[in-house]
Amino acid sequence: MLDTMTLNVAKQLLAAAVHKAAQIGIRGDVAIVDGGGNLVAFYRMDHARTGDIDIAIDKAWSSVALRRPTAELAKNAQPGGEAFGIHTTNNGRLVILGGGIPLWKQSRLMGGVGVSGGTSAQDIEAAEAAVSAFHNLISLVT
Amino acid sequence: MLDTMTLNVAKQLLAAAVHKAAQIGIRGDVAIVDGGGNLVAFYRMDHARTGDIDIAIDKAWSSVALRRPTAELAKNAQPGGEAFGIHTTNNGRLVILGGGIPLWKQSRLMGGVGVSGGTSAQDIEAAEAAVSAFHNLISLVT
Amino acid sequence: MLDTMTLNVAKQLLAAAVHKAAQIGIRGDVAIVDGGGNLVAFYRMDHARTGDIDIAIDKAWSSVALRRPTAELAKNAQPGGEAFGIHTTNNGRLVILGGGIPLWKQSRLMGGVGVSGGTSAQDIEAAEAAVSAFHNLISLVT
Amino acid sequence: MLDTMTLNVAKQLLAAAVHKAAQIGIRGDVAIVDGGGNLVAFYRMDHARTGDIDIAIDKAWSSVALRRPTAELAKNAQPGGEAFGIHTTNNGRLVILGGGIPLWKQSRLMGGVGVSGGTSAQDIEAAEAAVSAFHNLISLVT
Repeated sequence: MLDTMTLNVAKQLLAAAVHKAAQIGIRGDVAIVDGGGNLVAFYRMDHARTGDIDIAIDKAWSSVALRRPTAELAKNAQPGGEAFGIHTTNNGRLVILGGGIPLWKQSRLMGGVGVSGGTSAQDIEAAEAAVSAFHNLISLVT
Repeated sequence: MLDTMTLNVAKQLLAAAVHKAAQIGIRGDVAIVDGGGNLVAFYRMDHARTGDIDIAIDKAWSSVALRRPTAELAKNAQPGGEAFGIHTTNNGRLVILGGGIPLWKQSRLMGGVGVSGGTSAQDIEAAEAAVSAFHNLISLVT
Repeated sequence: MLDTMTLNVAKQLLAAAVHKAAQIGIRGDVAIVDGGGNLVAFYRMDHARTGDIDIAIDKAWSSVALRRPTAELAKNAQPGGEAFGIHTTNNGRLVILGGGIPLWKQSRLMGGVGVSGGTSAQDIEAAEAAVSAFHNLISLVT
Repeated sequence: MLDTMTLNVAKQLLAAAVHKAAQIGIRGDVAIVDGGGNLVAFYRMDHARTGDIDIAIDKAWSSVALRRPTAELAKNAQPGGEAFGIHTTNNGRLVILGGGIPLWKQSRLMGGVGVSGGTSAQDIEAAEAAVSAFHNLISLVT
């Protein structure tokens, strides 16, 4: 039974996100963290931006730390929004750009994925490929 | 006579805030700081967000550091507002989200409470439960 | 079955450490983190040092992050030691002073306790009171 | 011809280091950075320490930044040594523990590997497995 994020699972999630990123024509940085927000595995695709290393890792962290997709923060943290100002908390580690998504096994927070490299919509699409891969894996091993 | 924040008092304030948070259906992180802004006690409710640890502690700190509820900052720190930009001062420790409230004993700043986990309105409601508990305790021991 | 650190358990561990600290005549700061190193609960005893807030929290974090008591680091990180220099890694968060101890449930890392306020020997003694309380609680609820 | 670090190569270097780490009985964190010191890929083995995430990445970075194995720093940065104090420069990012090794293609600095999880000798052994893999790959593709 899978009850923590393993390196083996994380590598498959990275592969799924990288595959989708290539498919939609972006070069991204992709990170997988565990349920405590700690990095498990990371890939930077060739020619992807070095400025996205931190962003990808911190998107994954943020999705776990706030237990929701970072895209939701993107809306609420706009000027005038309920959560404006949240992006400078946690020593600036909290990212409010779409592309970070938590990985749930029912009510258990197992980890998070973060993708950075394209538009928010593209980053979300690549991250969702990792989420789908995660749910496929869970259904196999549980 | 109570003239500084004690651990015993802080625990009762945490209990009041946690009780209210549970009552209104949120899972929050709650912090009590003393009049110098230094942490006295902290509780993270089960399944509350880890990203709110820093936010709760920094809301309590901010309420003491600026001697006012953080909800007031939330308004003034919006773009176009008088205090826009204040949230990146103090190494980003200054939080402009509602839910931090100073604890006064007449004109004496005794400490602050910070709650994070729900909407600003919910965080404020839970923080106000701690403020009420504080005033009840003061009236008893003074 | 207890499979994550809960607030209820953390409060009992804090109480055990604070009780022992008082018994041996020190005033300490005590922190409990979960298995991911994230803070669950914290108490600063009356008249304990504010400089120990960070140290207690970071001792607890370090014990989880390195999966061993911080006292072991204290030896290896001395000049000439195998791990000299480790205390400046992780943005200085890694504490090499005794008083941080991981909390294991068999092979599962459930969290950590950090105590700061006395000598290393005293801090360790108070932290060990929390560890004992943890094992008593596990034997009851499992 | 291989003239920059690619993700494909980095994954093979990680695999080599992880394989060696498992063989010698340690659980490590392993990082590959490019010639600019920027992270390309990272693996945390199951049950490896979260405190070694930063250390592994920063060992790899340090080996590139100082263009030498971190084990050399370990000697010189001891009290009384020529480089004592260097470990607090670069915002503490510079790691003086063995296990970071630059990856050279003749006189061209192609990247670095960092391993953290065992003793310095063990970390170095696992990192050297990545270095060997790198030289094998170079001889094939050049």
